[in-house]
Order: sequence, then structure tokens, then C-alpha cells
Amino acid sequence: MIISMIPRATSEQVDYVCDKIKSFGYAAHPIRGKERVVIGAVGDGKDKDRIISVMESVPGVESVIPIMQPFKLVGSELKQERTVIRMDGFTIGGDQFVVMAGPCSVEYREQLMQTADSVKAAGAKILRGGAYKPRTSPYDFQGLEEEGLKLLAEARERTGLKIITEVVNTENVDLVNEYTDIFQVGARNMQNFALLKRLGRTRKPVLLKRGMMSTLKEFLMSAEYIVSQGNTDVILCERGIRTFETYTRNTLDISAVPALQQLSHLPVVVDPSHGTGKRNLIAPVSNAAVAVGAHGLLVEVHPKPEEAFSDGPQSLLPDEFEALMEGVRKYVTVDGRSL
Amino acid sequence: MIISMIPRATSEQVDYVCDKIKSFGYAAHPIRGKERVVIGAVGDGKDKDRIISVMESVPGVESVIPIMQPFKLVGSELKQERTVIRMDGFTIGGDQFVVMAGPCSVEYREQLMQTADSVKAAGAKILRGGAYKPRTSPYDFQGLEEEGLKLLAEARERTGLKIITEVVNTENVDLVNEYTDIFQVGARNMQNFALLKRLGRTRKPVLLKRGMMSTLKEFLMSAEYIVSQGNTDVILCERGIRTFETYTRNTLDISAVPALQQLSHLPVVVDPSHGTGKRNLIAPVSNAAVAVGAHGLLVEVHPKPEEAFSDGPQSLLPDEFEALMEGVRKYVTVDGRSL
Amino acid sequence: MIISMIPRATSEQVDYVCDKIKSFGYAAHPIRGKERVVIGAVGDGKDKDRIISVMESVPGVESVIPIMQPFKLVGSELKQERTVIRMDGFTIGGDQFVVMAGPCSVEYREQLMQTADSVKAAGAKILRGGAYKPRTSPYDFQGLEEEGLKLLAEARERTGLKIITEVVNTENVDLVNEYTDIFQVGARNMQNFALLKRLGRTRKPVLLKRGMMSTLKEFLMSAEYIVSQGNTDVILCERGIRTFETYTRNTLDISAVPALQQLSHLPVVVDPSHGTGKRNLIAPVSNAAVAVGAHGLLVEVHPKPEEAFSDGPQSLLPDEFEALMEGVRKYVTVDGRSL
Amino acid sequence: MIISMIPRATSEQVDYVCDKIKSFGYAAHPIRGKERVVIGAVGDGKDKDRIISVMESVPGVESVIPIMQPFKLVGSELKQERTVIRMDGFTIGGDQFVVMAGPCSVEYREQLMQTADSVKAAGAKILRGGAYKPRTSPYDFQGLEEEGLKLLAEARERTGLKIITEVVNTENVDLVNEYTDIFQVGARNMQNFALLKRLGRTRKPVLLKRGMMSTLKEFLMSAEYIVSQGNTDVILCERGIRTFETYTRNTLDISAVPALQQLSHLPVVVDPSHGTGKRNLIAPVSNAAVAVGAHGLLVEVHPKPEEAFSDGPQSLLPDEFEALMEGVRKYVTVDGRSL
Repeated sequence: MIISMIPRATSEQVDYVCDKIKSFGYAAHPIRGKERVVIGAVGDGKDKDRIISVMESVPGVESVIPIMQPFKLVGSELKQERTVIRMDGFTIGGDQFVVMAGPCSVEYREQLMQTADSVKAAGAKILRGGAYKPRTSPYDFQGLEEEGLKLLAEARERTGLKIITEVVNTENVDLVNEYTDIFQVGARNMQNFALLKRLGRTRKPVLLKRGMMSTLKEFLMSAEYIVSQGNTDVILCERGIRTFETYTRNTLDISAVPALQQLSHLPVVVDPSHGTGKRNLIAPVSNAAVAVGAHGLLVEVHPKPEEAFSDGPQSLLPDEFEALMEGVRKYVTVDGRSL
Repeated sequence: MIISMIPRATSEQVDYVCDKIKSFGYAAHPIRGKERVVIGAVGDGKDKDRIISVMESVPGVESVIPIMQPFKLVGSELKQERTVIRMDGFTIGGDQFVVMAGPCSVEYREQLMQTADSVKAAGAKILRGGAYKPRTSPYDFQGLEEEGLKLLAEARERTGLKIITEVVNTENVDLVNEYTDIFQVGARNMQNFALLKRLGRTRKPVLLKRGMMSTLKEFLMSAEYIVSQGNTDVILCERGIRTFETYTRNTLDISAVPALQQLSHLPVVVDPSHGTGKRNLIAPVSNAAVAVGAHGLLVEVHPKPEEAFSDGPQSLLPDEFEALMEGVRKYVTVDGRSL
Repeated sequence: MIISMIPRATSEQVDYVCDKIKSFGYAAHPIRGKERVVIGAVGDGKDKDRIISVMESVPGVESVIPIMQPFKLVGSELKQERTVIRMDGFTIGGDQFVVMAGPCSVEYREQLMQTADSVKAAGAKILRGGAYKPRTSPYDFQGLEEEGLKLLAEARERTGLKIITEVVNTENVDLVNEYTDIFQVGARNMQNFALLKRLGRTRKPVLLKRGMMSTLKEFLMSAEYIVSQGNTDVILCERGIRTFETYTRNTLDISAVPALQQLSHLPVVVDPSHGTGKRNLIAPVSNAAVAVGAHGLLVEVHPKPEEAFSDGPQSLLPDEFEALMEGVRKYVTVDGRSL
Repeated sequence: MIISMIPRATSEQVDYVCDKIKSFGYAAHPIRGKERVVIGAVGDGKDKDRIISVMESVPGVESVIPIMQPFKLVGSELKQERTVIRMDGFTIGGDQFVVMAGPCSVEYREQLMQTADSVKAAGAKILRGGAYKPRTSPYDFQGLEEEGLKLLAEARERTGLKIITEVVNTENVDLVNEYTDIFQVGARNMQNFALLKRLGRTRKPVLLKRGMMSTLKEFLMSAEYIVSQGNTDVILCERGIRTFETYTRNTLDISAVPALQQLSHLPVVVDPSHGTGKRNLIAPVSNAAVAVGAHGLLVEVHPKPEEAFSDGPQSLLPDEFEALMEGVRKYVTVDGRSL
């Protein structure tokens, strides 16, 4: 890391910083410029965050600039081979483009079965559906809970689709684990570190959504929480960030897809439903997600959006989803991938 | 609420929307303009969010505009009298300006006792200190946990200060409840709804920090989660939001203080330490918080910031805190309040 | 528009608002709800912004909600047929995907000619290059001015490419008009209304970049400034917005492309160079721009990026640009368009 | 500056960078860490931005970190004495707290004279009023132009107040200069560099508003544009930035006031009218501006806000302004200043 001193730092202050650096087992390399001194600290990365915090508090220090990426296990610096997650019959993160689709909330049997049948027919590999719903208002529908999990399992039986569902609390991890194939962590829980650690001790893939205010580095640090506990099957999901623009529900950060793929070896998928919040933007943005190189999509589909308990405005009808899949199929083949 | 139809909506679509509105027990008032029809829906607010979601999904509808505020119990529309929280010996939300101060993390006995003594001497009423730390990196110090809670209780015995500490998980609520006087919910957990509901069933005040990406409405909805479970003693804490500006750690939204006080009857305090992230901005911003009408402050103080396990750069030394309190004291008296 | 009264508005206040509405020649439709009154104002849109401003200031009014889009001439409500701009030999906004490429700044003859030759060979139709540079620092290179315009004209002669260059000031419009084929308005000037009006009185197409903090509505209002003066050939350019994310230079708002195409009939192109600021993200994001349906690209190319006077890190080498064009070509054909 | 190489940079790449650094007359200090090499470049700051740009484009370079602040003349590093602007009879930037008040737009004689009389009586020193209005919509009132300037001059005659008015275009600078005492540059023109340079060649103070998407560094660089042309009397104005929060018109960045005062020697004032956009937030935020240490306020006052051509909702009535001034007066005296 680099420690930049204030312009009028005394030589005692510079010496103090150098001694402090050495006390952590790092080497100190002061560079004396015309206006100020900057000091390079070279070491093995141990206690890095602690040292940064200490140095920022030392008198005479103006700023501390970390050079190394803060994430290790999920980073492409240490592991260059891409992570490919093997599901029963297909893979995520390799040459297949995987579509996960289904209703925002599991509401009732017919809704889910009908959706499952139609997304299966259109080419989806995984059925999504929320049994536990984190809702902004305490007065909104909060999910069917275990009843919803059972319906998802039934839909899996019926269709052969894998299932993905959200887990919102450490206390539910064991129960959800009994049913789901993939855990989903929602944007609001991206920094629920207790939950991340708990999921790191399960053996099922975790789809981690980017928080709506989270930088790519924070996103990867949250993935690091899971992987550091032993579970290496993490799928990153770009679902839009919050900006000043309110025309769309969020601003989908399309550049984040290749950026994450360069910074990390983990698979990256896109959620165009939350990313736009508007039904008529979902298909074009899905095409963009394919072309930018994403490994898959997470799409909301509902047989009767206007009766959906949540996210109706951004849910596609089954035939709209079918049309979306036709478009996606064309773009997937451009670079030799398959659906 | 108001439903705005698209410019070329058919009269069948308009009729369908009106029927739909009536099916929820609301009255429908269509207004035919030159370019489009807008429809007023009048009712008792029941199922409001559901109806909005439904209407946004109906063909021919362009947008739905809610008119009523989504929060009820925490709003000033229904309860105009301000909430004043009675602690043993002082109040929060009334004519007293209450300062909560202490280290970011509880680290070791001497650190905490020394800080407690000095913030007490300077005029603070409440000692803050984290025993459970939500940290961006899994490799950072995660807190002393119960050992930290015990040290806080010891500091309370020693000084007579009340204590506030963060709770990060539903599983820890009972344990933290045994020790703390006030629960703190951090910015990252503002929408950890399971935690909010659980705290709503305790009988101790909850200081709720605004999420770094949360609107005032979402903030108040999260307070509503707590109050709706029966616990009415919620303190709102503005601690800065995330914006494009990186010079400060966050952008402290000073207007949020009077805005929240107008929208709600709950007390509002300010955290200038996280709000700025820079030691030499904390005192002026604290003065601003007093002058804008906040009910109190939450300030980080550490006897040796450069050895702090977290947040060193924004922690004040005891004598810096004492100077801050002198400034604050002058501004508090301007409008007849006391410290 | 809809005027929402505060919950305790008096009937005198409601009557006053209704009278005020009528004084502007609008009809007033009050709807009395359980908690408050809302009033629909129906008219021809005349003086709309003025009325909104007035109403927001009337005692008892809580908020005013405009229903109509504020833009007229550029909106798809009044003109559904798409605008196709005819250049000599190709069109912008139709079935052709048009690539504009070249250096950020025109620096010296060889740099420009070499770039022009290579982007022409790779399939670009238009050469970009800045002769007037708006730079954050007064100490940075500010452009070759007329000398740069002359070099652009020479490159056009040599290659047959059309040229596009930025105009930063009303005082330069006439001079730039003598040389350029398309005017470019940079993001910082998106709300330089004097400049927009001046360009609205020329007869050449104007490529208008979205301001880094501008909403889609503000963007379209700026286009409206140009069109309202008589120049209907406006090309909208999404070039990324400023958000909290600093990994990329800006956050490219990919959803803005189909959103703008739905709200307006004007062509929409994407600038992946400023949108990402990172060389290795430009090609994947360009593919995404094609797939999402953009009408073209604006790309920075420089024969020696490391010697560029500006924007080196985001400038492609000629062979990188050639590779980008190969990718783009494949995606363009998916929906039957040509390059 | 510090150049950080990628983890697998070759020693040829490192050598190349060092040579390149030396070619600019800088010294190169490579520091070899465990994972990568970082190189310190030490010189006199000449061509700094150019070198950064070059280095970011060199193969093997991961990032370039400037250490010096990019602004010189406006920075507190080189000039520690504060700038105090002497007006006839009072100063800006010293121990006086200066209030500038008046209507958003100059509309008609009576409106302006009545406002001038009342703000003078309440203690304002400067009358504000827009004769040229940059408006989002081409269909909105664009200002009285020279007629407005004449009315401002007449109000000055009548009351003895100084006047401040906005200039939006280089072409108007001479004309506005004939009338005004202080030039105002609006947020949308903060990076209209041609205008800044032109104003730098006048001899009247310039109040420069922060752009709604501008960082503090960009803000100071724009001030540098003015000062670098010879005009040192620049007043910085914080007027709120654009964030995701829409409850207020902008988010007033209160920390920016002390931050700018630490980074620069220029006076800093606050505009609570644009900063909040809501009448009932202006007084508390004005008190906060005083307490945080601002040198003055810019406030919108209108005798009939509901008839204002612009900004009615955020304009105070004369008696509201008088009440605001009473509050401000109390806070100003706390630290020994006067109004």
C-alpha cells in the first residue's frame, strides 16, 4: 500500500509512519517528492485492512491507498480458471446460457405449476419463486414460507426443472436447504454477513444479488464471505443499482458483467426484471445481457401479472417469455454458446 | 390513488380499470382529459400496495400514483404529538439534546473504560460500542461478541451512562437484550425485516440507522416494521447516504432531519462520524446537526484512534470530543434546549 | 395534472385551488377521499409548467403531479414514425447500424489520417475527433480549434468518411458549421440552452450526449430545445451516467436505449468509450449496444493511446477497433440489420 | 504520482514505465512488492494530467494514482490566508455572515422593488434576481434579459443593496457586467469552461454554484479556471447535489462547506432554496449552514410565490424570510460573527 503524507509533514512524522509499517512486518520505502513524501509499504498482505485503518489515523498522514484487491478467493488473480457449477444435466458458468424463470412470489399451486410448465416449454432450466419475501412495507404479502417451498418441490417433480428460492434469515437456512437446489440471496441481504457465512457452510450453489448501493468490490467481498467458509459455488447476479434515474426501477449496470468476469472467476448472470422494472424493456435488455457475455438470466414470469402479489409490472406473461427466449436463442448462438 | 391511462387507451380498458378498482371496495372517478384519461380511486387505504401493483399490470395503464403516505403508525398524519422516549434520568426526542459517544468496536477493557470515563466527563449521556461488527471483509475484526457486551455493562456500572450496541441477527436479540439499554440497527440491516420484526417485540428503544441507499420513505417503512409489532420507541438516525461524492465517506443528508421530523413524530439523531468519515469535519457538522434541530448525536470516540480495530480515521480523541461538546453546548442553548 | 391537497386542507383551500385552475382555462375535478382531497385539472397543456409551479405554491397543496410528458415534438405520442436521418450514402436511425470512430482530440495530421484510414477500413461511416475540448482542468490541452477542423475536413476528403466534431460555445457554431457534417454536443453542455437553441437554427444533424446527471426526461427536453427551433435531425447518445460506482468511469445505462426509443422517435446511439472508461470493457459493451437495439456507436480510436492528449485509457488501437467491428457485425445481422 | 503495475507485469514493462517517467523529467522509484511492482514518480507537477493519461495507457499499468491535488491557485496548500472579498461597506469570506436574497426570476417592477425593500429591511446585503434563466423546458419563461438587469439596477439605487445576477453565455458577459455587482454562474454552467474563462477576465466577484453532479475537486477545478485568468474573487456556493433521494429537490451536502474551507481559501456560501426545494425546510437548513461555518446564504424570496414564474414552491414570503433572518442572527453570534 501507499501512504501519502500531508504537504507539511515533519520528518518525525515520516519516521513514525515508517516504524509503524515495520512493526507490522512490512518494509517501508519513502519517496520524497517536491511537495510531500509518499511511503510504499511492502508486505504479504497480512493484516492489510487493519494497517490501512491504523495508518489513516496517524498524524501527518493524508491518505492511504491500497494496491492489492481486498478479495482473494473469488479473485481472478489467484485462480484464473473459471468456476463452472455442475447441476444435474447442465452447467452454469461454462458454454451454456442458463435461464432461470418464474414468479416473484409463490402464491398458489395453479399459479406455480402453470408457470413452471410454460417456462420449461420455452427453454428455461431453473424455476424461480419466492417463499420468503423481504418487503418494504410490513403490510405487504410476506410469502407462503414452507408451504411455498413445498410447491416449488412439487413443480420440480412435475417438470424436471431445478429450483432456486430466496433465503432471508439464518434461522431459515436449514429448512430452505431441505427443498431448494440453489439458494438466492437478495439485494437487501448482500451484506447480511451472518447469512452469508451460514450459506458458506452449506453445499448448494448460492446466487448472490448485488446490493442496490454496492460497488463491485463490496459485491465480491460478500462473495468472499461465502467462499471463505468452504462453499465455492457462488453465482453473481447483476440486478441494477440505485441511481438518480427513476424512469427505470433500477439502473442495470451492463458493464458490471464483463468487469466482474475480469475481476473474478465466478459465473455472472443478469436479472433484467428488477434491473428495469418495466415489462417492455426486459426483452431488449436480455438480448444485451447475452451479447455482453453473461452466463444466464433470472426473469420474472407470471400467468396473470395483474393479479400477482408482487412485481406484477415487471412480470412477463408466458407468451412474452417465450418470445424473449426466441430472441435470446439467436444471440446465444452468435458466440457459439447454447441455451 | 390516481391511475393514469396511456394516451390511446380504449374505453374498454378504462372501464376495466374502473371495475377492477370497485372490486377492491374503492370508488372510481374517471377524469377525461384532452390526451388521456386519469382515474381517481378512493377508499380506505386497505390493500393499497396490492392494488397499486395490480393496476400497474393492467393493459392500458401508464402509471399509478399513490397519494397517501405508505407509513401509518410512525407518520405525523395520524399522531401529531411527538414521541419522547423516557430513559432513566433523561429523555430522547424532547427538549434535551442527547449525545451518545464511544468507540466503534469494544476492543478491550481499558479502551472502553477510559472512553466511558471521558465521554461521561464531557457530557455524553449514553455510551456506544459495538460487540458485533458487520464488516465488509470476512478477514476483518468481527467483534468481541458477548465479552464485549459484558464490558459495556461494566462501563455502565462504573459511570452511570446508559449503553447502546448494535444487534446484527435475530439469533442474537435475546442475548443483546440482557445487556443493552438501547438496540442499534446498522445501515446495512435497515431492511433486514426479520430483525426489525423481532426487535418490535422487545421493550427497549431501537435506534434505526438509515440505509446508505434508502429513501426517507423506505426509512420510515422500516421504522413502521418495528412499531407495527408493538415497540413504539424508535429513534431515527441519519448517518449519510451514498452518492457520487467520494471525498467524504458518505453524504450527510442534513435536510433529512427536519424532513423526518415533519413526516414523523419519532426522534431524529445524527451520526456525523459515519456521515463524514473525516475527523476534522465532525465538529462543524455536529454544530449543524444541533442548529437544524436534531434531537441528538451519535459520535465515535477512541483513546487511541490509530490503534482502533475499525473506523480509526473518523474517531475523535477524548479531548477532541470535549471540544466538540463545548461547541455543541453553545448551539443547543440558542433555541432553549439543554444538553 | 393532479393536485393533491394536504390531509387537513380546508374546503376554502380546495375551492381556491379549483378557482385557480379555472382561471387558467382548465376544468377542475375534485375527488374527495377519506383522508384528503385530490383535484384533477383538465386542459390543453397550455402554460402547464407555469400552472404546476403556481399550484405547488398555493397553501393547502401537498404536491402536484403532471400527467402529460413535458416534451412534445421529440415524443412518440405525437409522432409515431421514427426519425431517419439521411446522410450522403447511408442513414442513421433506420436499418443500418452506424459506427462513428476516431480520436478523442484531433492532435496532429498523421494521428488523424492514420486513424481515419483504419476506421474506414474497419467499417466506420463517420470520423469523430475533437477540435474544441471541454477539460476539467484549465491546465489540460484545450484542442487545436480551427486547425483541428481543417484536419478533419482533410480526412474527409481523403477517406470519404463523414465527420462529427464537438461544438462548445455559441460563438463557435458558425465556424464549426463550415467544416462539420454533424455537430456533437457534449455531456457537460446538454443543458447549455443557448447553445442548443443556436444549433436548432442550423441545418445539420446534432448528436446530443446525455448529461452525466440527467434524467431521460431532461435529456429529451434538451432535444426538444433543438427541435423546437426547426432542426429535427437530433441523434440521442447514451454515454453513461454518474453513480456511486467508480470502477467504471461512468455507469452505462443500457436500458435507456430502448426506453428512449419508446419515449421518442429520435435515433439513439451508444458511446461505450466514455460509458466504461476502460479499454477491455468496450467490445463487450458494444455488442450489448447492438443487441439492445441501438442505432449506432461512437467509439474512441487512437493509433498510440499512450501518447493521446486525452482519454488514452479508453481509446482502442486500430486493430482492437477492427476486432470490435467483427464482433459488432455478427450481432448486427441477428435482427436483419446491416453495418 | 504512483503507478501500480498489474500482478504479472514483466520487468520489461516496468523498465518501460520508468523510462517513460524519466522522459518527462520526473524521477522513477520502483517498489517491488510480493504480488506486483508499484512505481513512484517524483517531479514538479508539470504536465501532470498528461503524464497520468499516458501512463494509464501503457501496457502493464493497472492504475495511476495522483497524489497532488489538481488545483493550485484556489487550494489552501499554496495560499493559506483566506480570501476576503471587499464589497462597498461589507466583506464576504471574513467575520460577516452575508445574506443574498430575492426572487428566482426578475418578473416585473413591483415584484422586484417590493422584494428588495423587504429583504433589505430584514438584513440582507445583496439582492438576487435572474434576468437570464436557464430552464429545462424551451416552453418555460426564459427571463426578461436586459429589461431585468435594468430593474435590478433600479432596485440597487432604491435600497443600497448590491446585486447579483446569473450570466449564462459568453455573449452576455459584457452586458451583464454593465449592471451587476456580482456574477452568478449556475449549476448547469459550472463546467461551461468558455464562460468561466471569460469571467476570469472581468474584475467583479463571481459566485460559482456547484454542479449537481460535480465532485468537490471538479468544483474547485472550475474555480481554478476563473482564478487562472486573473480574477481571484470567487465565491463557492453549495446548492445541493443530485442523489437517489427525491423527497428534496437536491441533497444539500452540508459537509462540503467545511471540506471546501479546508481544501481552499475561497469563501463558501449555501443556497438552501435549491438545496431543499421545499419552503418548510429552508429555515432549519439555513441555521445549519450558519452553524457549520458557511460565509453566507443565497435565498429565494418572492412576495407572491404562487404567482412566481419559477421556483415558487421554494420561495419564501417576505415575512417568512424575516423569521428566517431572526433565527440566523442568533446562530451567527454564537461564534462571534455578525450579520
